[in-house]
Amino acid sequence: MAKPRNILFIMFDQLRWDYLSCYGHPHLETPNIDRIAARGVRFDNARIQSPLCGPSRMSTYTGRYVHSHGASWNNVPLKVGERTMGDHLRDLGMGCWLVGKTHMAADAEGMRRLGLEPDSKIGARVVECGFDIWERDDGMRPEGPDGFYDPGGALKYNDYLRGKGYESDNPWHDYANSGIDDDGNVLSGWFLQNSDSPANIREEDSETPYLTRRGIEFIKAQGDEPWCCHLSYIKPHWPYIVPEPYASMYGPADFLPPVRSSAERETDHPVFKGFQNAPVGKAFARDDIRDKVLTAYMGLIKQCDDQMGVLFDWLEETGRMEDTMIVITSDHGDFLGDHWLGEKTFFHDASVKVPMIIYDPSEEADATRGTSSDALVECIDLAPTFVDVAGGDAAALDHILEGHSLLPMLRGGPAPARDCSICEYDYSATPLAARLDLHPDQSRMFMVADHNWKMIHFESGHRPMLFDLQADPDELTDLGNDAAQADTIARMYDKLNAWARRPSARTTMSNASFIKYRTAGPRTGVLIGVVDATEASNDTAAKYIGRKATDKRER
Amino acid sequence: MAKPRNILFIMFDQLRWDYLSCYGHPHLETPNIDRIAARGVRFDNARIQSPLCGPSRMSTYTGRYVHSHGASWNNVPLKVGERTMGDHLRDLGMGCWLVGKTHMAADAEGMRRLGLEPDSKIGARVVECGFDIWERDDGMRPEGPDGFYDPGGALKYNDYLRGKGYESDNPWHDYANSGIDDDGNVLSGWFLQNSDSPANIREEDSETPYLTRRGIEFIKAQGDEPWCCHLSYIKPHWPYIVPEPYASMYGPADFLPPVRSSAERETDHPVFKGFQNAPVGKAFARDDIRDKVLTAYMGLIKQCDDQMGVLFDWLEETGRMEDTMIVITSDHGDFLGDHWLGEKTFFHDASVKVPMIIYDPSEEADATRGTSSDALVECIDLAPTFVDVAGGDAAALDHILEGHSLLPMLRGGPAPARDCSICEYDYSATPLAARLDLHPDQSRMFMVADHNWKMIHFESGHRPMLFDLQADPDELTDLGNDAAQADTIARMYDKLNAWARRPSARTTMSNASFIKYRTAGPRTGVLIGVVDATEASNDTAAKYIGRKATDKRER
Repeated sequence: MAKPRNILFIMFDQLRWDYLSCYGHPHLETPNIDRIAARGVRFDNARIQSPLCGPSRMSTYTGRYVHSHGASWNNVPLKVGERTMGDHLRDLGMGCWLVGKTHMAADAEGMRRLGLEPDSKIGARVVECGFDIWERDDGMRPEGPDGFYDPGGALKYNDYLRGKGYESDNPWHDYANSGIDDDGNVLSGWFLQNSDSPANIREEDSETPYLTRRGIEFIKAQGDEPWCCHLSYIKPHWPYIVPEPYASMYGPADFLPPVRSSAERETDHPVFKGFQNAPVGKAFARDDIRDKVLTAYMGLIKQCDDQMGVLFDWLEETGRMEDTMIVITSDHGDFLGDHWLGEKTFFHDASVKVPMIIYDPSEEADATRGTSSDALVECIDLAPTFVDVAGGDAAALDHILEGHSLLPMLRGGPAPARDCSICEYDYSATPLAARLDLHPDQSRMFMVADHNWKMIHFESGHRPMLFDLQADPDELTDLGNDAAQADTIARMYDKLNAWARRPSARTTMSNASFIKYRTAGPRTGVLIGVVDATEASNDTAAKYIGRKATDKRER
Repeated sequence: MAKPRNILFIMFDQLRWDYLSCYGHPHLETPNIDRIAARGVRFDNARIQSPLCGPSRMSTYTGRYVHSHGASWNNVPLKVGERTMGDHLRDLGMGCWLVGKTHMAADAEGMRRLGLEPDSKIGARVVECGFDIWERDDGMRPEGPDGFYDPGGALKYNDYLRGKGYESDNPWHDYANSGIDDDGNVLSGWFLQNSDSPANIREEDSETPYLTRRGIEFIKAQGDEPWCCHLSYIKPHWPYIVPEPYASMYGPADFLPPVRSSAERETDHPVFKGFQNAPVGKAFARDDIRDKVLTAYMGLIKQCDDQMGVLFDWLEETGRMEDTMIVITSDHGDFLGDHWLGEKTFFHDASVKVPMIIYDPSEEADATRGTSSDALVECIDLAPTFVDVAGGDAAALDHILEGHSLLPMLRGGPAPARDCSICEYDYSATPLAARLDLHPDQSRMFMVADHNWKMIHFESGHRPMLFDLQADPDELTDLGNDAAQADTIARMYDKLNAWARRPSARTTMSNASFIKYRTAGPRTGVLIGVVDATEASNDTAAKYIGRKATDKRER
């Protein structure tokens, strides 16, 4: 039975599920990603666990909901002790390496408390959410009045650029993520008005080809041991700007109109309205700005796809396509003006649905090649899938891993049993939470979705929102106020609340251990409610009968 | 302002709240505990977080619900990384020591993974749920066909007994917890028929006086540094047996009748019925057995109270009463046949309500001396109270500590804001779960109670149970089937579910940090939705304008 030896786990950042031709984009051809879809399974209902890089990724890496791992916003540290795919895979003899972005923030306080040194072998893995590091590059080197957002961000890449002659204290910004005007002035990619300028960098030196090369270098350097490589691209995440030839590839004829309605604009919902009114919502409500961003966004995706071509050709040539599982996904989408929103921090499918394509080279997977599935799939399903690929038994870890292995399904078996998908967002740190005067406990929201309905619950006490996914797949009509939907809302609340009560913290004892104990019973001498020796099992009672007390104490 | 320097945190095991004279027992005089109540505050609605030693204690020690820390049953390890009162108090310069029982099981797998050695300073504290050890004695040295329940249990105490001439391979069993017949045969305390026999040990050598002496030795050995001493008694927990003179103190005239009804016996609820049908339920349904057990149980409590007299007299003599906060509580109660149940694993107040008495030596507490409070208090409130006593700010740790400090209330301030108490029980490992054919996820139940109502939710899918605590304080009439109570049940479910959705895993970032970020805003250069430099704050925009690109790359 042929089995994948290795796993190439490719993640893009902020890649909308519907901006690939295999998912139906009419004007953006992505033939290289499509060829993996043609040889694998395309999941059409794959959703992430939080619409923001950090928490979404921590869920993917741990196989656990945000409500379980607690890293609920960017730069909230993943606490020491949370096991990640790296921990699980290494237990099974498979290395687990990072090339690119994770958005991991280390739990320095937790490490200090346990005496874990960041530069020790174990400590370094805790710092990097369980990965061994080929190259960590979160693709972020912004600088503000308080300094760099990420002091360690893009350091190697900046060195690379300087080595290539891009002179600057921050070539990541000045070349890779900015244009230039005729007078040599940098047109910062941070300003959306510059998004349709070509990035002032040779295409081959930009971030996506750079990471492809680093990924190939990693694979080349591997010997006989099986590996999982998390090749984690930075793009098409902002700053929205792309070098030529991609900067000139797409124009207004290629842009899909925004999916939005005037009824949405007039929503009575304070939280939805509040997100619309954020600067990014207002910016994307401007057609001129949206067009500039789409010019870059589509170009960035096209560049990503071309790089997939480079990578997959190389895998074919070297034989790795025969022994490597390939996963292509994203950490969340991008509203791009849909629903009067920008960015991703809400729960429409533009944000929470992601592309997920899995190619399994094994013969057993021949039956499913080129198929698609509408099963409810979550990003937390990848970690258990990888455990199974590495020869483990993800089901035996279901007290830790909250997702379900997709491996049976890839090989013609049933889809995971799941009656809803859950997504969460914690906006405690946002100005909106301040404007609404909400405590952090209240400035959180949950999505619960099945094939027919999507409900959004707000801890702020505001009414839920509800979408009929069958009748209204664009999610334009909020039925949260509709008295006729009371039963549906109650049913979705039942799902959400049953999920919330799940025993996700009990990670130190398996379900199998509990079940075994039921019948194995107490065999270590504890007797509860036993009146006399006739009621105890003979071999336990034997311990307590026929004993003599012959003490020599003073009387 | 006089403040307590030290904390003497006394816990009994399986001590019912209503088996003390200060809580109203008509025949069991406990003048020594009562004198602390007369000088402190007696809490009349103090409930524990799980009706079983291990999970209840892990909640007390962490200040967190079982649903948060995950140690849901005896011997389910508390996972590495869960901070305990020991961790918090040492951060504040107060030592935190154990004399007696914790029922802690170490997370050996988690420790191995992080390279923590059990005999290192940090590792030893992780093993012992954050305590430094004066003496660990869980008071349990049963032995069955598979060996000892607790290989390390009662080792020092057994050595002590052997040193006193109690010859045996297990004097804990043969003397401290058994009687003897005229032929020198050991009458094991494991068999309830022997509970009214006197334990075959000199009273001074039995476990309660032994631990009192060990506690006094600990306090004597302390220098100038402040300390918290968890003096954690084993009794009146089973084996139910007590030496003379206590074995002869109480008889049928002193026993309260069981609180139970024939309607309860005929309940249609499969889980409640299942617990009634456990061997311990059946044993306590026999009046002869219940009387034997009560003989020992009341004697054990009387002995505990007499030992409190020894301890408090010594504290008075040495001046410690002037600078030491004293807390008296228990980890849960004991049904003793009430509601046709034995042991503690259900949610009536006989089990989940505990005595809680706090004496604060400071002048500010003079206003509350000798008072009682009906505030909803939980065992998780002790850890934050101790943090405040040690000079910390428990409110600043409310992302970790889920309880509320009682210190303001002890000093005349308001009671903690709490609209319900929560208790949980995981019976996944029991034969009942097997009989009902339940997955571990389903064999769990929750109690939610306020001043008026107590509801029990079953994950098994069975209907809830409901008690009207005002009209039916004995909890004899289950209204869970009463259609007239649908609104009440819905309201209690709202409380339970809001609690279940709380963000208890996000322990690495404080609420204050989130709130501060709202207005401090992004000052590290990230610009989201900014169209041009005029929209960015001037000092951030300044980083991205006026830059020149003067690269020397090949063209």
